[in-house]
Amino acid sequence: MTKFKNTINVVVPGEPDSSYPIHIGAGFLAALWAAIQTQWPNHKPFVVTDENLVRAGLVQQLLDGRMAPMFSITPPGESSKHIGTVTAIVEEMEKAFLGRDSLVIALGGGTVGDIAGFAAAIFKRGVPVVQIPTTTVAQADSSVGGKTGVDSSLSKNAFGCFWHPAAVYIDVETLATLDDRQYRAGLVESVKHAAIADAEYFDYLEKNIEPLLSCDTAVLEHIASENCRIKAAVVAEDPTEQNKRRILNYGHTLGHAVETASAFSLLHGEAVAAGMIAAGMLEDAMGLVKDERLSRLRRLLEQLGQPTRIPKAISKAALIDLLKRDKKAVGQWPRFVLLEQLGRTLCKESQWAHEVAPEAVETVIEALV
Amino acid sequence: MTKFKNTINVVVPGEPDSSYPIHIGAGFLAALWAAIQTQWPNHKPFVVTDENLVRAGLVQQLLDGRMAPMFSITPPGESSKHIGTVTAIVEEMEKAFLGRDSLVIALGGGTVGDIAGFAAAIFKRGVPVVQIPTTTVAQADSSVGGKTGVDSSLSKNAFGCFWHPAAVYIDVETLATLDDRQYRAGLVESVKHAAIADAEYFDYLEKNIEPLLSCDTAVLEHIASENCRIKAAVVAEDPTEQNKRRILNYGHTLGHAVETASAFSLLHGEAVAAGMIAAGMLEDAMGLVKDERLSRLRRLLEQLGQPTRIPKAISKAALIDLLKRDKKAVGQWPRFVLLEQLGRTLCKESQWAHEVAPEAVETVIEALV
Repeated sequence: MTKFKNTINVVVPGEPDSSYPIHIGAGFLAALWAAIQTQWPNHKPFVVTDENLVRAGLVQQLLDGRMAPMFSITPPGESSKHIGTVTAIVEEMEKAFLGRDSLVIALGGGTVGDIAGFAAAIFKRGVPVVQIPTTTVAQADSSVGGKTGVDSSLSKNAFGCFWHPAAVYIDVETLATLDDRQYRAGLVESVKHAAIADAEYFDYLEKNIEPLLSCDTAVLEHIASENCRIKAAVVAEDPTEQNKRRILNYGHTLGHAVETASAFSLLHGEAVAAGMIAAGMLEDAMGLVKDERLSRLRRLLEQLGQPTRIPKAISKAALIDLLKRDKKAVGQWPRFVLLEQLGRTLCKESQWAHEVAPEAVETVIEALV
Repeated sequence: MTKFKNTINVVVPGEPDSSYPIHIGAGFLAALWAAIQTQWPNHKPFVVTDENLVRAGLVQQLLDGRMAPMFSITPPGESSKHIGTVTAIVEEMEKAFLGRDSLVIALGGGTVGDIAGFAAAIFKRGVPVVQIPTTTVAQADSSVGGKTGVDSSLSKNAFGCFWHPAAVYIDVETLATLDDRQYRAGLVESVKHAAIADAEYFDYLEKNIEPLLSCDTAVLEHIASENCRIKAAVVAEDPTEQNKRRILNYGHTLGHAVETASAFSLLHGEAVAAGMIAAGMLEDAMGLVKDERLSRLRRLLEQLGQPTRIPKAISKAALIDLLKRDKKAVGQWPRFVLLEQLGRTLCKESQWAHEVAPEAVETVIEALV
């Protein structure tokens, strides 16, 4: 049996059958297929992945010479995250004579996980999905929480379900296939988890920046565990994002706007890095907190090679316009997640996202461009 | 406030938030919009319906002069039950600036309910849906139980979710818009409910055949209540069809094959009528039961103008082939739901669907063609 370094159990309240394990370790991918078959002996596997994973040799590692029905998303990335890809996956599963006893195995980054998870959620009214995230973003973030979905021609995640995985397998060795920029930008979600929920974890990241940047296995296993523990705790409290789950959006409100305004020339993590700096400046401007957290955050992000400013090419007007159209906006203006100290998110009158005057946001944007 | 003749509460076990009411009455459609707005004051309505309902004037009755964003399925019926229609509905909702606070209102027969329910299930990871069924089939069957979905090019309901409605409103006066053949065929599901679960209800149907055929309001309200009560009890015990819910398939195993083999020239209820007679003959052949139930069933179905034989144009070989490909087949042969007496389904070793020798099925088919 495959040995894992750590296993975290995610409990979804109100849905007793939806708890699932996250297994974390290094170098187990080639042994995983047999472990999955032992775990789900009566299910027929169907692999969803993308060209990048095939090219990196990870699909071959997973299958280890076996044959299995498979769908490789082409082209890889956001441009394939639409309903047509989901339809193609479902029809491919039908052509492979799969039924309600199938098990979708998603191998890849966040996009693969979102698409495959959604296909599993709606195939014959729902079949289980196993997530094997292979990027720093997906290992930190998108394989935990049950959000699945694809974009419409008009907006992101217009189609989707909450569909929790049957299990998550995080093999940190798969991260070696990422290019350096993707690898580093994905670490921003780890910084975010530390900032919103755990000052000790923030210390750990500061102290381990060197091994982290050189892909040290033990450090990667540790941060995968910390990320999943933190995110799982938040999701368990609020699985469908009625309230507290909003804290996972720290830095994302302006971050999303910056990402979109850059026409996606910035990676998600890069945009969120700038968004977290902006949130920290709002906290200062509102007099919420007086500590070193913003300078520490800035230094850590810089050490990870992340932007801590907004690119000059982006106009303030464009950002303001995007903020007004934020999908969580209330009365055409978004609320912001803010810290009350490093490792603790501000909660006021039971709310985790707060009104911030547009003028304050404009001032921060001006200072950051 | 709108007055209903009867309200039945459906409880979905394990999902405390998914219980919902089924309101039954006559002539309340024109007052329903205000009632829905009172019930969901913070939700923005979006109506899904089809051309038939527009032509019959029921959409106008529901809206009563109000404006509301709407999608009318074109053409009405099974041929529109595909993912393209769902995509069009989702994008229409986005164009109407609807978000997670929207409420889908499905007005129509089973196809409208299946499509609209599925669109609601996947729009922005799920918004509530209110079902207003307007056919005898949908009022008896498809608006209760949470099954939603659309067909792929390869099979029925390849895409789907379990998504329970927020409420169901059954106005029996809407049935007046059905043509006589549709109206009668839809009553077969009522006969099925009586046969599998309630001998007294079967007596009631036998005694009220005249008022039933002339659309008597009180009788229609009574059978709507009985149907929902019976189906809700079964669904509450087994929401995702692991076992007992299979009894709702009485007559459907051969019925589906006959429906498909007729190239859908038979209506669903007509095919199920022949399927129930076949099931009754299997019960006799297997010596399961000796009573008058099969002759009573045949007489009641004949009084409703339903076929109790298989059309001559359908070959035995075609039916056998379709049975082998039944989606619930185990080892290429379906199991059959059988009665042990009128109003009681056979349960053996905790199973509600049973192995029947192919030869026995062939003999019954030969006798029925």
